[in-house]
Amino acid sequence: MKFSKIPSATITRLSLYSRALEELLLEHVNIIASDKLAQKCGVNPAQVRKDLAYFGEFGVRGVGYFVKELLFEIKKILGLNRRWRMALVGIGNLGLALVAHENFVKQGYEFVAVFDVDPKKVGRRLPSGQIIHHIDELPTVVKEKNIDIGVIATPASQAQATARLLVEAGIKAILNFAPLQIQMPEGYIVENVDFTVKLDNLAYHLTMEAV
Amino acid sequence: MKFSKIPSATITRLSLYSRALEELLLEHVNIIASDKLAQKCGVNPAQVRKDLAYFGEFGVRGVGYFVKELLFEIKKILGLNRRWRMALVGIGNLGLALVAHENFVKQGYEFVAVFDVDPKKVGRRLPSGQIIHHIDELPTVVKEKNIDIGVIATPASQAQATARLLVEAGIKAILNFAPLQIQMPEGYIVENVDFTVKLDNLAYHLTMEAV
Repeated sequence: MKFSKIPSATITRLSLYSRALEELLLEHVNIIASDKLAQKCGVNPAQVRKDLAYFGEFGVRGVGYFVKELLFEIKKILGLNRRWRMALVGIGNLGLALVAHENFVKQGYEFVAVFDVDPKKVGRRLPSGQIIHHIDELPTVVKEKNIDIGVIATPASQAQATARLLVEAGIKAILNFAPLQIQMPEGYIVENVDFTVKLDNLAYHLTMEAV
Repeated sequence: MKFSKIPSATITRLSLYSRALEELLLEHVNIIASDKLAQKCGVNPAQVRKDLAYFGEFGVRGVGYFVKELLFEIKKILGLNRRWRMALVGIGNLGLALVAHENFVKQGYEFVAVFDVDPKKVGRRLPSGQIIHHIDELPTVVKEKNIDIGVIATPASQAQATARLLVEAGIKAILNFAPLQIQMPEGYIVENVDFTVKLDNLAYHLTMEAV
């Protein structure tokens, strides 16, 4: 089953809906109208209905969505009803910060292996428990530990070569924090993280206030 | 002038359109059809037209958008035709990584002051040139250096208190990397960065492939 026609923006919005639904669940909200959910996510109500319609029929007309049920369904669609095993390459400041960041484990993403090339780092154990492997061990470790996702936190100059190593080791999905767009072969997927998109939203609001 | 009715998702998409237009400019593309631009951003064409319609009339019917002109207009709307001055609080691994990350300066965002509470860190100079101030100096430095945006990279336990300090110092916009949702007073804005939203997109694609 492949939903190749589903826009990636829809998937990103499903992710936002799931965060909003998790919050509602914590607030003991059982049912939410589609326009309320839309508002909470900064999307128009027609968009919410359209996004969900790709995957089936959800909610009850004139009533809304059952929070727990919709959250369960969205998590199933996104594949978040399981844990994902990640390998991190590049144990610099960013790499150390990522391994220590609590959100990953909370959302089901676990760093099960970490790699670097620096002989001073290789063999050391991180506070979170992982031993730093040399990058040459990547093919073996990826197989042994059943890694699903590669995370790149190397300098920009090493990022493309690192992506190639991960692909050769059998990894199909990469999250890239290095400040360049990584190219991937057909059938593989990369998400490049750009912190500045969030800043643009702040800049816009400050500009509007000042006018 | 306040566009209070404009959804924040529209602003985020404008940011994505501007990144896409920058790429097109580098590829010497002069004109792009709205459905091509939409496709490049994973959005439907009606959405692109609707997003832009909030701000005026752009493009030529049956022809498309002039890349350079639209990029200029979007940057003006977002407030990216100027530089933004940022203060970073929390010089741990993530803080160090953020200060060194090249994308910020490239997109017009500059860390002009950095703060911590650790006496071993305060007074030291970072490789990027900034001297680490004690957090107690925040009110003075924010005024002296005309800071626009505060960036929080403290542990979660300190993030809300840090936000309050920034607000009291006169800062209206905060980018928060600590793993909790920060609450801000009315009229102030915070963007919480959640790395896992991008991972959800990877998880979705891996799940679809495997089914």
